[in-house]
Amino acid sequence: MRKIGILHPGQMGAAVALTAKNSGHEVYWASEGRSAETSERARKTGLQDAGTTARMSEICDTIVGVCPPEFAERMADEIGALSYRGLYVDLNAVSPERVRRIAGLVTANGAGFVDGCIIGQPPAGRGETWIYLCGERAVDAAGCFTEGPLEAEVIEGGIGQASALKMCFSAHAKGMAALRAAVLGAAHQLGVLEDLERQWSRSGPPMAQAVKSIEITAPKAWRFIAEMQEIVETFESVGMPGDFHRGAAEIYRRLAPFKGTEKPDLADALLRLTLDVSPELIAHRGK
Amino acid sequence: MRKIGILHPGQMGAAVALTAKNSGHEVYWASEGRSAETSERARKTGLQDAGTTARMSEICDTIVGVCPPEFAERMADEIGALSYRGLYVDLNAVSPERVRRIAGLVTANGAGFVDGCIIGQPPAGRGETWIYLCGERAVDAAGCFTEGPLEAEVIEGGIGQASALKMCFSAHAKGMAALRAAVLGAAHQLGVLEDLERQWSRSGPPMAQAVKSIEITAPKAWRFIAEMQEIVETFESVGMPGDFHRGAAEIYRRLAPFKGTEKPDLADALLRLTLDVSPELIAHRGK
Repeated sequence: MRKIGILHPGQMGAAVALTAKNSGHEVYWASEGRSAETSERARKTGLQDAGTTARMSEICDTIVGVCPPEFAERMADEIGALSYRGLYVDLNAVSPERVRRIAGLVTANGAGFVDGCIIGQPPAGRGETWIYLCGERAVDAAGCFTEGPLEAEVIEGGIGQASALKMCFSAHAKGMAALRAAVLGAAHQLGVLEDLERQWSRSGPPMAQAVKSIEITAPKAWRFIAEMQEIVETFESVGMPGDFHRGAAEIYRRLAPFKGTEKPDLADALLRLTLDVSPELIAHRGK
Repeated sequence: MRKIGILHPGQMGAAVALTAKNSGHEVYWASEGRSAETSERARKTGLQDAGTTARMSEICDTIVGVCPPEFAERMADEIGALSYRGLYVDLNAVSPERVRRIAGLVTANGAGFVDGCIIGQPPAGRGETWIYLCGERAVDAAGCFTEGPLEAEVIEGGIGQASALKMCFSAHAKGMAALRAAVLGAAHQLGVLEDLERQWSRSGPPMAQAVKSIEITAPKAWRFIAEMQEIVETFESVGMPGDFHRGAAEIYRRLAPFKGTEKPDLADALLRLTLDVSPELIAHRGK
């Protein structure tokens, strides 16, 4: 039995924590500065409260970081500053380069480091969502997650490979969804949305599928902005164009106000997508 | 019976010409300066040779332009310079703004103008490929194309709407294909192509589908570069991000050397996609 600390257990973090618990480990979180919603989630998942991150770092042999990508480096820095000497597992959606920087932060003061990622939604059962782990201590880290609902899998290669996989998977899934939203936004602005729907009914995705893609992504769009920026950096680091995901970040930025909305409708989404259209551009259009 | 001239009958132009012929019209082309391949295609389609564009403009009451988008404006300018007074139908994949400029060029000297586009591949039979037409004389132009294999359809709105529809349809289809190619290129460069394939086999498109998408687009990629640039202009004119299709243009530029290749394999395509990776970027990746 290990003592595992989960930093910032949001919805996905709670699924990670539950997997660790199901795998026979004692699982902790740190309530200091966290929201009532996170508290309630931690209580329901049956996590033990270490109070502070500092205390967690004393209790736990393994600490797992799960947070939006823009906070990943700061979170690791906090652990590094505590001179933590256990195993730190970073599961965040960051570029390989950033995860290597993060590894540097935590290993400089003595911690072990595993690069990981999560692909899929917070799962109801097994076979839905995967944790990929890589680096020298990846097999060790996989021992935290043997019984689901998340499935852990070790991949080859050093630190950076799990993050690279996440970047590529997400570049496709979230990039496609953003591109589709942009096409609907443009078609709406150009006055050809119905014509596009008719042509798509002949050869293309059904319009319903495109609309569903917006409905699913819009409530989570705020979280995707930084992730798209990580993908831009990843793609450009290997000479692939970063433009697709610069566009995707912009689309998700426009959809960010749907945070928490259960199911935005198409008219609302198109309105949001086009709210950022500047008067200059509208004038340009009228030319 | 009308006399219809088809400018630059490539593979799609020949399908347009055949449709006009099937619809009971006399169809002309102009052999001057055209390739032996185009000559052979025109002969097989049973087109009459007007010799020159100037002579075609004397013979024909309707002239139809079908060419890669980068030549569309020049072609229209040539017709304008001939003081053509018949009906000019532009079927090219250009932005609404460019088609309005093209309309200006040909109507200034007395021709009528219809904005059109073609969606689909050169067709084997009906119900595969559509000509959309708009503008005051769209119904008149549709009379050229009543009997297939291409299906003609008039859409509402003034000059620019058919082009807008083409831009949106193509932004989706060719944008998605380019994004998919970029993801494969990045995954290859990052060393996670096999991991991505395994994850896609669990949740994602089958890898085979992504590979097929490259096989289909690579031989035509050279033609898509200018089309992606037209989409960038179209999207930006209505305040949508042009980045996606800037990225797509870059991907198709890299795949352009596959022009005429029957079926490039994945390894070849990935090589081409990454040939443009500069040494600086590779160094950056090693950091």
